[in-house]
Amino acid sequence: MFPLRRAVYSARCILPNVRYMSGQGPLVDLTVDNGGIATLTMQRPPVNSLNLDLLQQMSKALDDVGKNKARAMILTSSSPTVFSAGLDIMEMYKPDMQRVEQFWTTLQEVWIKLFGSKFITAAAINGHSPAGGCLLAMSCEYRAMVNGKYTIGLNETALGMVAPTWFMDTFRNTISDRESEIALTTAKLFTVDEALKVGLIDVTATDKADAVEKCKEFIKKFDRIPPFARATTKLVLREVPLKRLIENRKQDVETFLGFVKDPKTQQAIGMYVESLKKKAGQEK
Amino acid sequence: MFPLRRAVYSARCILPNVRYMSGQGPLVDLTVDNGGIATLTMQRPPVNSLNLDLLQQMSKALDDVGKNKARAMILTSSSPTVFSAGLDIMEMYKPDMQRVEQFWTTLQEVWIKLFGSKFITAAAINGHSPAGGCLLAMSCEYRAMVNGKYTIGLNETALGMVAPTWFMDTFRNTISDRESEIALTTAKLFTVDEALKVGLIDVTATDKADAVEKCKEFIKKFDRIPPFARATTKLVLREVPLKRLIENRKQDVETFLGFVKDPKTQQAIGMYVESLKKKAGQEK
Amino acid sequence: MFPLRRAVYSARCILPNVRYMSGQGPLVDLTVDNGGIATLTMQRPPVNSLNLDLLQQMSKALDDVGKNKARAMILTSSSPTVFSAGLDIMEMYKPDMQRVEQFWTTLQEVWIKLFGSKFITAAAINGHSPAGGCLLAMSCEYRAMVNGKYTIGLNETALGMVAPTWFMDTFRNTISDRESEIALTTAKLFTVDEALKVGLIDVTATDKADAVEKCKEFIKKFDRIPPFARATTKLVLREVPLKRLIENRKQDVETFLGFVKDPKTQQAIGMYVESLKKKAGQEK
Repeated sequence: MFPLRRAVYSARCILPNVRYMSGQGPLVDLTVDNGGIATLTMQRPPVNSLNLDLLQQMSKALDDVGKNKARAMILTSSSPTVFSAGLDIMEMYKPDMQRVEQFWTTLQEVWIKLFGSKFITAAAINGHSPAGGCLLAMSCEYRAMVNGKYTIGLNETALGMVAPTWFMDTFRNTISDRESEIALTTAKLFTVDEALKVGLIDVTATDKADAVEKCKEFIKKFDRIPPFARATTKLVLREVPLKRLIENRKQDVETFLGFVKDPKTQQAIGMYVESLKKKAGQEK
Repeated sequence: MFPLRRAVYSARCILPNVRYMSGQGPLVDLTVDNGGIATLTMQRPPVNSLNLDLLQQMSKALDDVGKNKARAMILTSSSPTVFSAGLDIMEMYKPDMQRVEQFWTTLQEVWIKLFGSKFITAAAINGHSPAGGCLLAMSCEYRAMVNGKYTIGLNETALGMVAPTWFMDTFRNTISDRESEIALTTAKLFTVDEALKVGLIDVTATDKADAVEKCKEFIKKFDRIPPFARATTKLVLREVPLKRLIENRKQDVETFLGFVKDPKTQQAIGMYVESLKKKAGQEK
Repeated sequence: MFPLRRAVYSARCILPNVRYMSGQGPLVDLTVDNGGIATLTMQRPPVNSLNLDLLQQMSKALDDVGKNKARAMILTSSSPTVFSAGLDIMEMYKPDMQRVEQFWTTLQEVWIKLFGSKFITAAAINGHSPAGGCLLAMSCEYRAMVNGKYTIGLNETALGMVAPTWFMDTFRNTISDRESEIALTTAKLFTVDEALKVGLIDVTATDKADAVEKCKEFIKKFDRIPPFARATTKLVLREVPLKRLIENRKQDVETFLGFVKDPKTQQAIGMYVESLKKKAGQEK
């Protein structure tokens, strides 16, 4: 059922990682500069797969941004080629049901805090950004992407998955309904040029430093805008998708658990993981 | 009340046909190729006016596509110059109320099956596609239109009619709210170039065969996408307009019956039909 | 809290006017030509700040358009450089609570009548059109703007204010959600070229006469469209935002009164008004 051939590119991205790597050091880095701009860097090698640990640390970091009275946050990655490869498939493989529930709840939490943040958000997308990686970038208010052979998009259907409604809402908050339908059903991964043309990103950058710089230029636009008015305006505009998840969190968790528990899902993920292992072996 | 002068072009299109032509042979043709791609051809001469019989056969054909396990369907026309001229006005003229109710219910049914299909849909628009013809094309997931002196659009207001809410929803699912308002109120029939520019169609084609070919190229994009994930994603994205009709079918029928029963409507249609007859006579 | 430096350009626009100028003559001019096209001209010097009196006269004029059986209305300004500078801040400064409630209720009324009019509406934007000025223009069905050093946009956040939900709805009825979010949060005032590119206006004009002419060309598109079908189609398409305000008028008034009563608001407006007075003094 899983489109193995199509997953070739993803092979490196969603390489099964050993769980509980958090013992090896923090998975995120949070700094705040003198101008009140925080930088949240995802640093879970090799590809910032979003597992429970990374998500928990992101969730805490998003709280810390507010506590540090930073007025803005730039989200980026420590990897030279990947922003984030999206959800860690190992969280869904032969899962401990308690952990997988916590995993999904934390993902919801991260989205609610990021998409609904009062502080300004911008993504410096310095590499591939499929699926959950794209979700994180779209949840920000601005996207600068490094011009390279990278792609971005919600490609869940290619993996036999249906993006949750709030992933879709976030996509349609960024590009048109028509473009969203064709992209989501065809699992389209946009090149940087395509993403710019359709409005999935706002600007291209020569490298990560330039992407960060362009995010700062965006943030500068708000220098003379009273923060309360800005934040309230943003939240009113994002109210419908935000409310839709907040009011349906339990049901959304149930849907995900039902998907994960399905023996067919497990069989498909199993085949997929095996193919990744084989591929990883061949590359050694 | 009816804008007779503006209706000149439509004269050939909505030529009053003798009812119950179905005795003369099937009004649709359904084939399925080896690749699992069905082709549904409307063949009610001269202009595929959507009367009860054609709609009933389309409704049945849409069921058959599913039963034949076709994974995709291309909708096209046997006419050399018209995709479909839209609703057959003769169904609304001095109507038998039982039949006209069945007519509208069947139109709803066709839209629900087409707009909400689990299989992939694409329209090879090989000619004019006003009003109901445009609705059918927009209900598909992809539109390839033959580059000629053809037009497409929801021009109901020019005929003194208000497009049902679900026609409007389908339009706004395809192009922007702003473009929709100006097009729907001005009864705009887009040239092929205009339709492409605004996103009402996805691609132009040199002729019908090329349009069909381009639909097949679109369908090919799904070769490695698990069908269940694709179909579910499509249906989640189309859920709001689909639900709106499904939950309001009775009221929508009542609204239409009220419009048809109105003596002013009958008078206007009467004048219109007379003008068409006269025009048809002059052309002999 | 108020961004005083940013308000430089606004200094002339929102110059505190003596209240109750209506004694000096009518604040609007309404004419109807032989073709059934009304022209509603705002004429409250110097910048058509929307105070209670101007809004009351506009509200009455909008009723009169209907009574005069005009089929269309062009909204424009008597000022050579300003369409409308938006809400008169003096209505919010040390306000009489009864009057300020009437002020907001009348603003709601004007929007409901204009955005929800059955007659055709077009704006000949012959100058700056920030905030409430932009709202009036967007509430029309068509916008021709004089090509000059003018700007248009909802810049409320720059003044520390949150645009009411119905301002935002009107904006999103005109341009995309993505463009709306970035414009509303950054208080973007679009140049004429930018406004055209993003679809905030439909066409540019060389001067006011040309803008009016272009509005007439737009109105001409409806010459053969039965008015009832056109009006009903428009109102169905605009139903969601219209209903949202109509069903929440009281709450919307309460929100505004709460904002105005807040001592912080009064302090900020006070500082702003003082800065305008100082600037006005320096210019003498």
